[in-house]
Amino acid sequence: MLQKRIKVGLLGLGTVGSGVYRILTEGNTTLGEKAGVDLELKGILVRDPKRQRLVDVDASLLTTDPGTILGDEDIDIVVEVMGGEEPARSYIEEALRAGKQVVTANKEVMAKHGAELLQLARERGADLFFEASVAGGIPILRTLQESLAGEEVEAVYGIVNGTTNYILTAMDSKGLDFAEVLAEAQALGYAEADPTADIAGHDATRKLAILASLAFNIQVPLDQVHCAGIEEITAADIEAARELGYVIKLLAIARRDGERVEARVHPAFLPQGHPLAGVDGVYNAVLVEGRAVGTLMFYGAGAGQMPTGSAVVGDLIAAARNLRAGARGNNATGFAREGKIIPMEEVETRYYLRLRVAPEPGVLGTVTGCCGAEGVELASLDVKNWGKDSADLHIRTQRAKEKAFRRLLAALGREPQIYAVESAIPIEGEG
Amino acid sequence: MLQKRIKVGLLGLGTVGSGVYRILTEGNTTLGEKAGVDLELKGILVRDPKRQRLVDVDASLLTTDPGTILGDEDIDIVVEVMGGEEPARSYIEEALRAGKQVVTANKEVMAKHGAELLQLARERGADLFFEASVAGGIPILRTLQESLAGEEVEAVYGIVNGTTNYILTAMDSKGLDFAEVLAEAQALGYAEADPTADIAGHDATRKLAILASLAFNIQVPLDQVHCAGIEEITAADIEAARELGYVIKLLAIARRDGERVEARVHPAFLPQGHPLAGVDGVYNAVLVEGRAVGTLMFYGAGAGQMPTGSAVVGDLIAAARNLRAGARGNNATGFAREGKIIPMEEVETRYYLRLRVAPEPGVLGTVTGCCGAEGVELASLDVKNWGKDSADLHIRTQRAKEKAFRRLLAALGREPQIYAVESAIPIEGEG
Repeated sequence: MLQKRIKVGLLGLGTVGSGVYRILTEGNTTLGEKAGVDLELKGILVRDPKRQRLVDVDASLLTTDPGTILGDEDIDIVVEVMGGEEPARSYIEEALRAGKQVVTANKEVMAKHGAELLQLARERGADLFFEASVAGGIPILRTLQESLAGEEVEAVYGIVNGTTNYILTAMDSKGLDFAEVLAEAQALGYAEADPTADIAGHDATRKLAILASLAFNIQVPLDQVHCAGIEEITAADIEAARELGYVIKLLAIARRDGERVEARVHPAFLPQGHPLAGVDGVYNAVLVEGRAVGTLMFYGAGAGQMPTGSAVVGDLIAAARNLRAGARGNNATGFAREGKIIPMEEVETRYYLRLRVAPEPGVLGTVTGCCGAEGVELASLDVKNWGKDSADLHIRTQRAKEKAFRRLLAALGREPQIYAVESAIPIEGEG
Repeated sequence: MLQKRIKVGLLGLGTVGSGVYRILTEGNTTLGEKAGVDLELKGILVRDPKRQRLVDVDASLLTTDPGTILGDEDIDIVVEVMGGEEPARSYIEEALRAGKQVVTANKEVMAKHGAELLQLARERGADLFFEASVAGGIPILRTLQESLAGEEVEAVYGIVNGTTNYILTAMDSKGLDFAEVLAEAQALGYAEADPTADIAGHDATRKLAILASLAFNIQVPLDQVHCAGIEEITAADIEAARELGYVIKLLAIARRDGERVEARVHPAFLPQGHPLAGVDGVYNAVLVEGRAVGTLMFYGAGAGQMPTGSAVVGDLIAAARNLRAGARGNNATGFAREGKIIPMEEVETRYYLRLRVAPEPGVLGTVTGCCGAEGVELASLDVKNWGKDSADLHIRTQRAKEKAFRRLLAALGREPQIYAVESAIPIEGEG
C-alpha cells in the first residue's frame, strides 16, 4: 500500500529526546522494514536552540515556538519528551484536540491527568501512548493493555525507580550509609541535584499509579497512594537484613482485594531468593500476578537515554501503524473507573523492627507484652549487643494490619525500657 | 459505539482449549470491560463429543465437522488449539481464505508455515496471531512485533521448553540421572508418553525459529537450526558444572551477525549468576538484547492450561479489537525475508570437555598438544580421580569455531592415551 511519509514533531531534546533522535536517525537498518512505516522528523521544540546538545541535530529543525509543531497540520504525530507537568500537559491536550496522535514519556502528566487525556483521545479518535513513562525500556504498559487484556490481574509490583535501586545496591555492596552513596550517585549522574522526587518515593508513586490504572482499569488518586522513601535506611538496616536473609528494596505494590486496591511505595525487606532481590543497580523489574497466567516478570533498564528512547520509538511506530490503518483511538484502555484505594491502616503486612532497649531483666517481657496487647504476633526475636548501656532487639512480626502496627510503635514509645525504635520496615515476598 | 457480539469458533478442546474455555466463561469480571469487546463462543470442534473433558461444556456447542465452524459466516474469529501440523494448518488456511481472524497456539504450524500463512493473512486483510505458540503465558511475541518494532534486536535467547527444564532442574536438585527423572516427569504429567519432541530439542527449535522470525524479520528454515537435546546429559555433567560454578540448561539461541543469523538449540553450561540460571522447573524465560534498549528479560510459566489459555485469550481480544476498529491485517509482521543462517561449524563458542584418560606421564601434553594443533585454546584444566586405571580431565576452552572443536574431538579420539570423551557441552553467558 502506498503511504505518504508520516511526519513527526518532537517536544523536547533532553536525555530522552536525544535518544529518540538517535534511534530515528542513526542507521537502523531494520526500522523502516520492521515498522512498515516511513517516519520523518519535521520539527523539534527546544528552549534554547544554541545550547550544546547530546546529539548533532540539523539546526533548521529546531524551534522555540510550540505552535510551529502543535499548529502544523502536516504533523501527524507529536512526541512529548519534555518532562514536568506544565506546559507538557497543555501541549498534549492541544495536540489531541487537533486530532494528532500523541506519544509521551511523561509519568507526572499521565499519573495526574491520564484519565482525562485518554478520554479526550477517545473523543478525538486519536491515540495516546505512554510506554516510556514507566520502567524505561521495559515494555510493561502495552503488555498490560494488550497481551493481558483478558487477564484478571491480581497484583502488579516491582522496582520502578533506578536511582533508589542504585543507592540501595551500592549501600549493600559497599557497606556505606545513605548520604555517602547519594553524593556518589549524584557525582555519577545516577541521581539528580535535587533528588527528592526519587528518594522520597514520589517518582515510584507516579509509576505505580499508572501501572495500577492499566492493570485494574481504574483511576488512582495519587494522594491516596501510601509513599515512603529510602532516606532513613541505614547501613545498619542493610546489615541486619542480610543477616536475616533479606535485601532491602524500594517496592511499588498494587494489589487487588475484591473491589478495592492497595497501592503503596515503601522500602521493604525481601527474601534473598525472591526474583526482585537480584535486580541491582539502575535496573527495574515488574512482576504481574494474574489469575490465569500466574506470575510474569519483566526485567530491563529502567531509565537512560537509549532504553527510554527505544520505548518512545516503539510507541511512535504503533501510533504510525494505527494512523496508516485508519484505526486510531482504539487502544486508549485503562483508567476507566474511579479506583477505591484501601487506606494504608488497613493493609496487612509483616514488619522488621529494631529496638534499642535497656539491658535489664524483664525488657523482653515488656516488648512481647506490648506486641500481645496490640495484636501483633512475633515471628522471631534476636538479642544483639547486650552491653552495659543498651541492647539491640531484632524482631520480625507475623502479618498484621498497619494500624495495629502503628499502635504498637506508639506503645513501645511509652515504655521507659525502650530507648528507641531504630527501624521499622515492612517485610514483603513471604506468604 | 454499539457493536454486534463477536462470534468465536474454537478448534480443539484439549489442555489449552479447556483453558481458553475456562477464561472465557468463568466469571472474569474485568474481561469484557478491559477488552472492550463482547465475545460469544459459537462452536467447538472436537474429535469425540462423548469424551470426558477437563471442563463442563454445553454439549450443543460441540461438533465433529470442521465445516460447521470454518464455513459459518457468522463466526468472525477462529481459534486453533488442536496442535500438530495437519489438519491444523489446513483449517487455519481455510479460515484465513474465508477472511476470518485467526488465533493459533500452534508452534509446529507457525515454525513451518508461518511465512505463507502470514502472507495469506495480509492478502485477505485478516489477522493471524500466535502468541501462545512460544513460551506459554509469556507475552514475548507481541512485544517483539510491537513494542520492539523500532529496536535493532541483536539476540534473542532463553529457556523455552518446560519439560527439559523440569528434568534438568530435578537432576540438579536430586542428583539423579536423566532416565530416572524422565520417568518421574512422565508420571507427574510434565513429560509426554513419547517425550522425543521435548527432550531431543525439536520443540525448542520450533519456538526459536518463531522468535528469530519476529526478532530479525526473517524466515528461518527449521532444518538449518542446529539442534541437540538433553538425552546425554548425566548426573556427572551436572555435578561437574556445579563444581565449576555453572548450571546446565537447554538453551535456544538466535544471534545476528551482520546479515546472517546463528540459530541453535543445545544444552549449555551457564554461570550460576546468569539471569537464566535461576529459571527452574517448568518456567521459561526469554532474553532480548537490543541495540538501544539493552537487555530485557521476560519470565513466566512456559506451558500449562491456564497460562497458555491466557495468551490465546489475549490474542483473541486483539483480534476482536482489530475487527471492531476495521483495522484487520496490519499486524502480520515478521518472517519477511529469507533468513541466512550461519552454519553451526562457523559458530564460535566455548566448551566444557570431560575426558577419561590414561593415568600416565605425558597425557596432559597429549591433550594440550591436540588443542594447540586444532587452534582451540584452554581456559582451565582440572585433573580428578587420578587412579590406577584412569584419570578424569575437566577442561574449559576459550572461544573457538565449532569446526575447530569438532576437529579437536576427532583428534582426541585418535590418541590411545585418551580412553573416552565423556562430555562436550558448550559454555554460554560468559564474554
